[in-house]
Amino acid sequence: MSQQRSDDVAVLTPSGRLEAFSDGVFAIAITLLVLDLAVPARDQVRTGGLGSALAHQWPSYFAYLVSFLVIGIIWVNHHTMFSKVNLVDRPVLFANLALLLVVSALPFPTRLLAEYLTAGSDAHAAAAIYSSTMLAMGLAYSVLWIAVTRDVGLLHEHVDPVASRAALRRFGLGNIVYLATIGLSFVSAIATLSVHAALALYYCFDQLATPRAKRPRRSAG
Amino acid sequence: MSQQRSDDVAVLTPSGRLEAFSDGVFAIAITLLVLDLAVPARDQVRTGGLGSALAHQWPSYFAYLVSFLVIGIIWVNHHTMFSKVNLVDRPVLFANLALLLVVSALPFPTRLLAEYLTAGSDAHAAAAIYSSTMLAMGLAYSVLWIAVTRDVGLLHEHVDPVASRAALRRFGLGNIVYLATIGLSFVSAIATLSVHAALALYYCFDQLATPRAKRPRRSAG
Amino acid sequence: MSQQRSDDVAVLTPSGRLEAFSDGVFAIAITLLVLDLAVPARDQVRTGGLGSALAHQWPSYFAYLVSFLVIGIIWVNHHTMFSKVNLVDRPVLFANLALLLVVSALPFPTRLLAEYLTAGSDAHAAAAIYSSTMLAMGLAYSVLWIAVTRDVGLLHEHVDPVASRAALRRFGLGNIVYLATIGLSFVSAIATLSVHAALALYYCFDQLATPRAKRPRRSAG
Amino acid sequence: MSQQRSDDVAVLTPSGRLEAFSDGVFAIAITLLVLDLAVPARDQVRTGGLGSALAHQWPSYFAYLVSFLVIGIIWVNHHTMFSKVNLVDRPVLFANLALLLVVSALPFPTRLLAEYLTAGSDAHAAAAIYSSTMLAMGLAYSVLWIAVTRDVGLLHEHVDPVASRAALRRFGLGNIVYLATIGLSFVSAIATLSVHAALALYYCFDQLATPRAKRPRRSAG
Repeated sequence: MSQQRSDDVAVLTPSGRLEAFSDGVFAIAITLLVLDLAVPARDQVRTGGLGSALAHQWPSYFAYLVSFLVIGIIWVNHHTMFSKVNLVDRPVLFANLALLLVVSALPFPTRLLAEYLTAGSDAHAAAAIYSSTMLAMGLAYSVLWIAVTRDVGLLHEHVDPVASRAALRRFGLGNIVYLATIGLSFVSAIATLSVHAALALYYCFDQLATPRAKRPRRSAG
Repeated sequence: MSQQRSDDVAVLTPSGRLEAFSDGVFAIAITLLVLDLAVPARDQVRTGGLGSALAHQWPSYFAYLVSFLVIGIIWVNHHTMFSKVNLVDRPVLFANLALLLVVSALPFPTRLLAEYLTAGSDAHAAAAIYSSTMLAMGLAYSVLWIAVTRDVGLLHEHVDPVASRAALRRFGLGNIVYLATIGLSFVSAIATLSVHAALALYYCFDQLATPRAKRPRRSAG
Repeated sequence: MSQQRSDDVAVLTPSGRLEAFSDGVFAIAITLLVLDLAVPARDQVRTGGLGSALAHQWPSYFAYLVSFLVIGIIWVNHHTMFSKVNLVDRPVLFANLALLLVVSALPFPTRLLAEYLTAGSDAHAAAAIYSSTMLAMGLAYSVLWIAVTRDVGLLHEHVDPVASRAALRRFGLGNIVYLATIGLSFVSAIATLSVHAALALYYCFDQLATPRAKRPRRSAG
Repeated sequence: MSQQRSDDVAVLTPSGRLEAFSDGVFAIAITLLVLDLAVPARDQVRTGGLGSALAHQWPSYFAYLVSFLVIGIIWVNHHTMFSKVNLVDRPVLFANLALLLVVSALPFPTRLLAEYLTAGSDAHAAAAIYSSTMLAMGLAYSVLWIAVTRDVGLLHEHVDPVASRAALRRFGLGNIVYLATIGLSFVSAIATLSVHAALALYYCFDQLATPRAKRPRRSAG
């Protein structure tokens, strides 16, 4: 029995270090986005023309803000998911790694869409790649949710299977919306990015609107 | 009641992971600043002229130092604020995300001001953008303070409402000063950056001058 | 005796901060890889040609994916190794630093191989450098394993010396395979990168296939 | 008294978050160094000439290795210092910030020295700037040591004042050596970087040679 226990410890580990590593990747991906806000070269800006040169870069700011919000919200959700998790096993570690792959790759389609947002027909391809990355993120998040909730022994507390499946259906709906934005990309790249912005803001306010739970009372058991 | 409790845990989480994620963003933003210190291209520097080529880049060093100090001080204040916080809820998570947005964007206006500090009329625009970022940081910090102190149940310990409002008034005063630096930007960019340097140093020494509190005694209860 | 104890504390420290620092380096190295996915310059892409310009960059995506997987798996293994470790001493700190040197350097050979994968005879040199980095990582990991398991007092629990030596033999075998990929580099760079991809996937699935251990029971002692 | 206690908590905080933030800065600075290892442009390398193009970049690898080792050793020492620290106050926070300023700036002089190591008279200026950064790091580390040990109430355990002053003298000696390397810079840049490499290796092996302390026994009190 003590041998069994020692094997358990080798395979199931506390979730703390997964969270620390994930926090690192989220923090770096969200901060690296700023490297793609380019300072206009001084010798290409007419004196007094810095303002309009900067205004001309609006696609960069727009894509930056949307991607920042998306990573931020995914982090908030990841944080909430793992506040329920006690132990992780290898399928959880690898499902988490798949999510981190998408998160850490996001600066690339962001840069791509910023560069090509107003580039005629190429804008469609850039928007479709951006939307596909969002779909991949939604799918990876759903897989991670399945990996975490498939085994009640990994969790701090009982998660209602009905509630868990309802959450999964909600994620599934989100993934269908992301799939639709891939289609929308071939209509209008700017509309596509606007929809991603709207989705991100919707998720923010939706979550802020969650009815304020009473905090655990300290005095009364 | 146990159902209620499980909802509570889902919405209110310990502040540890928010701090870890924020530390990551602060650490990356403060370290990315160094990427904007450019090494003069070897084929554009006359032999023996490296010293003067480097000296010529003083705006980069100046902007680097001020932004490093500002992020460092914000981190110290964030650290102090959250040493009083026990639990966080979603409004705190999103208010913190807004502060991190400004912190992680700071390398961009820093680079911009470094490039245009001596560029005639464009310097005014660059300085105004830099000052606006500082104002945004001050406002985001004030909002985070309100989010954290609005509910005494999030804190480790009782925070005096009078002291809390006094702190908020002090932040408000700081924000008015930041607002004034936007105006100053249109007079002189170099003076504006100097004022930001002076403000940062003032905050450093002000905080160092806080009367040394007695440390908790171990032996005596 | 209390003097002895105080010296112990100075030399042996809990493994937590080594893990935090390592997590930071792993997270940054794995996320910096994305900086080498280049957005094709807009003025060099014919209208409508973005798709083919991106497809043309397949060596970058291939090298990105393989290096991401490799760092991810090394992190999972590092995580598993240190879940058994309680205390670290200086040889462990420096063996870990050697591993981190290889991990943090990996973006360079990745970029190199992505650039030269289809470059005729230069591809061989690039692939050999990439393979050598993998060998260095395998050797550094083996040395860290030896440093950690050489002294049972550093571990949380008893690690069977037989199992420990078996693990070392398994790592040794992996290192011989990495050595062989250096030879393969001079035959085909693409085949070499494919083998590294296959090895990474093999390690993923091998680890996922580990028989699921029973989790520690809570109710029954 | 409870009011007093609440003030104490505001000013003295546990050292954990300072360590986490510092780990982040150390990890990022040490990993950003790799960005300065440039991949030779494919159109500037004759077919078959990649090997010699890479060999030509030896100053980059040399400077990379020395700076990696230096940051690594500083991290090991920082780790050891703070394993003795229980609480931090504002002077410690700001002394630590000064050290982090030097650490996070180090990629700049590293890049500079790599670029100018073989550039005739400009190499002297680059080496002097690199050596000055090392001196600044040594001084900042000494100041942090003074800040931490000035008040026995910040420490986990009693640190012998005699041992503490001996350590400070040892750091002082190191700083004199760093000062001497500034002089050496004007004789030979390559010799200067070699001395920094030798110093780093000396510190590694010196620390590895520390007599192995007995680990705390678990069974016997």
